[in-house]
Amino acid sequence: MSDSDNVSGSAGADSNDVTVALVGGGTVGSQVARLLLESADDLAARVGRPLRLTGVAVRDTAKPRPGIPADLLTDDAAALAASGADVVVELIGGVSPADEYVRAAIAAGSSVVSANKALMAEQGGDLHEAAEEAGVDLFYEAAVAGAIPLLRPLGDSLAGDRISRVMGIVNGTTNYILTRMDEEGADYADVLADAQALGYAEADPTADVAGLDAAAKAAILASLAFHTRVTLDDVSCEGIENVTAADVAAARDMGFVIKLLAIADVTPDGAGVCVRVHPTMLPRTHPLAAVRGAFNAVFVEADAAGQVMFYGQGAGGEPTASAVLGDLVTAARHRVSGSLGAAASTYNDVAILPATQARTSYYVNFSVTDKPGVLAEIAQVFADNGVSISGVRQEGLTDQASLTIRTHEAVDEALRATVAAVGELDSVREVAGVMRVVGD
Amino acid sequence: MSDSDNVSGSAGADSNDVTVALVGGGTVGSQVARLLLESADDLAARVGRPLRLTGVAVRDTAKPRPGIPADLLTDDAAALAASGADVVVELIGGVSPADEYVRAAIAAGSSVVSANKALMAEQGGDLHEAAEEAGVDLFYEAAVAGAIPLLRPLGDSLAGDRISRVMGIVNGTTNYILTRMDEEGADYADVLADAQALGYAEADPTADVAGLDAAAKAAILASLAFHTRVTLDDVSCEGIENVTAADVAAARDMGFVIKLLAIADVTPDGAGVCVRVHPTMLPRTHPLAAVRGAFNAVFVEADAAGQVMFYGQGAGGEPTASAVLGDLVTAARHRVSGSLGAAASTYNDVAILPATQARTSYYVNFSVTDKPGVLAEIAQVFADNGVSISGVRQEGLTDQASLTIRTHEAVDEALRATVAAVGELDSVREVAGVMRVVGD
Repeated sequence: MSDSDNVSGSAGADSNDVTVALVGGGTVGSQVARLLLESADDLAARVGRPLRLTGVAVRDTAKPRPGIPADLLTDDAAALAASGADVVVELIGGVSPADEYVRAAIAAGSSVVSANKALMAEQGGDLHEAAEEAGVDLFYEAAVAGAIPLLRPLGDSLAGDRISRVMGIVNGTTNYILTRMDEEGADYADVLADAQALGYAEADPTADVAGLDAAAKAAILASLAFHTRVTLDDVSCEGIENVTAADVAAARDMGFVIKLLAIADVTPDGAGVCVRVHPTMLPRTHPLAAVRGAFNAVFVEADAAGQVMFYGQGAGGEPTASAVLGDLVTAARHRVSGSLGAAASTYNDVAILPATQARTSYYVNFSVTDKPGVLAEIAQVFADNGVSISGVRQEGLTDQASLTIRTHEAVDEALRATVAAVGELDSVREVAGVMRVVGD
Repeated sequence: MSDSDNVSGSAGADSNDVTVALVGGGTVGSQVARLLLESADDLAARVGRPLRLTGVAVRDTAKPRPGIPADLLTDDAAALAASGADVVVELIGGVSPADEYVRAAIAAGSSVVSANKALMAEQGGDLHEAAEEAGVDLFYEAAVAGAIPLLRPLGDSLAGDRISRVMGIVNGTTNYILTRMDEEGADYADVLADAQALGYAEADPTADVAGLDAAAKAAILASLAFHTRVTLDDVSCEGIENVTAADVAAARDMGFVIKLLAIADVTPDGAGVCVRVHPTMLPRTHPLAAVRGAFNAVFVEADAAGQVMFYGQGAGGEPTASAVLGDLVTAARHRVSGSLGAAASTYNDVAILPATQARTSYYVNFSVTDKPGVLAEIAQVFADNGVSISGVRQEGLTDQASLTIRTHEAVDEALRATVAAVGELDSVREVAGVMRVVGD
């Protein structure tokens, strides 16, 4: 069998081939098509049968697509999705009409590989159910942290363990910005402008810098880690727009680095799961602290396995295509062997709690009037709210002083209430900074 | 169904249960039994049916085993292995008689989960073939890097990609020793003695410090990454016994850290794979450089995925038990669904080359007589052997000088020949240090 036959849509077509329909021919789709072509023999050996591309759905069939044979192009995505290919790969992104295509593919008996975080964060539970009923695979490794093999290990390798917390750097744009702020002492606005000029940030960076992209990934991670359904609406979200050079410098002084983390953890009583995205102070010795630039990493704490971290490139056409192809090979192997991957389990009836119920510790910086009794007054507010102070640092001896308070772990809403109440005191000029701390 | 029924060997036995036989009741075996008991309901939900422990084979049935019901103990490991349980878990270690038990289990139609690196490094290829013929699963995630989900991602998630290099810190004892040497400036012998006193190193530490343990893991990693058969005999191995405090300090001065790495890579022409274990200088900015103490990590470079790293605890009863249980859940799910995991593919007919063919770069330190023409003479030897010099540093202005030469990448045997020839020169007093460099 020749190289080209293995993925050609015309010559050498064989009912024995594993057929693949590609819905979406953008950056990732083109890379996937290219990898399918270039590695045809290798993939056939890995799968046990040749993979045959039956079509690539694109918006504009007239636009030349290097590496994709023109006769495979179609602008009828709905028909291609429902064509009954062995595997349908959905790469158009967004919730609609991707959801219709995925449902049509499942209904037609196709296994589905998707890179669509928005869709999985919103409808993952329903789509898993549909796939299970239809007896097909639904894989989406590329939807979170690009090429890092992460979702399958979470659902599979750690399946016998009990995960207590998942936290990750899952957005490359914000990590790039925070890394440069940390290493250069630069201002947020300057680094953002530079990142936009370099193509690391979009012209409208909101989805990244406001934490929305990370929140969708947090929902997917939490669903898999805790065997339950978490959707985007369950995720509380705070971006990096208000992180200042002063915050970053203060963190650095104390041996911390500020990262935008997606965090999902079980409450100490096991009753619920809190999922949130916010800037977080991490000790510099923490493995996540060393994750620089546009790299991603997800840190998992499990009862028996202890600490496990997955690190790699989070975005980009090639890494994402690698993840898609990994899923595709697995789904194709299952077709050949007549088997299925383990379904994502959503049996766990654990409550999804608002992030106000998350347990965390705070660094709070107040600008205060330096007169006798100020500290006692502030400490009393903390005590009244049931928040325990673990450390205090006061700087400045004149009229105006800077007071930094580190708390022990407490429920987030108690901490917020405390900070608000302290801010109301006459002796307190300003709440200059509030930052959650993890891993200390 | 009650908690205890789910794993009891007596009450509540149900032909619908997934039966599990545990061959080996040591540290890991006891942990696995404990996790099976403690998480019985959770595991039943994840698998779809209860898991039922049918027996635990131990040497001494009279010895009390907390957490394992006495009526499950047997000293007839061979009979238990061949009992036809759905899943046989082999945890006795060593090649023989573990190989017989695993073969007997496969022959009886059982899926096998093993934590046995020695067995897999020696007979992995044959055992995979036997498992494939019998239509059963063979999983051994715990054999390399303990609880880090690593083998399945290598074989599965990166299945569509082309891996060019795998390198890892896969032995906790040596990484603990090297970390303390680096951070404290301590001598090898002192840290080793301390590690032995603390239980981090065996009374006879040879298997660890000579790199043999890492070599077995390197063979398993290379087999999976390159879809070929690599056995322990194919792995060239150099330990850390000769790493001195001076080597570590010199590396630190230059911004490097010394780690014992297991490395497997494809030659630039794609013709062969070199697998070796040796102390290596890594730049401190490399993600592997931050892996401290007894932690393990494996760093993968793939064409499309780019750089990916897996990090976690490499040893210990609980992390290893977690990995075993992850495999066990997957194998049990496959039993319930009547499917199989993708077989490890060994279709790749790539040559396994001796480590002398590996491409690497060197730092070499010579003690030389400081007279005119010494450097020219030495540089000529490098040129004669086809090794290109990338940097030179000379220190000491009197009779005796220290000359450090950094080479470009070259074939290892050419570098060795060069260093040997330079050592023969009259003007060279001593080859004071030779260290391979990676990741620069």
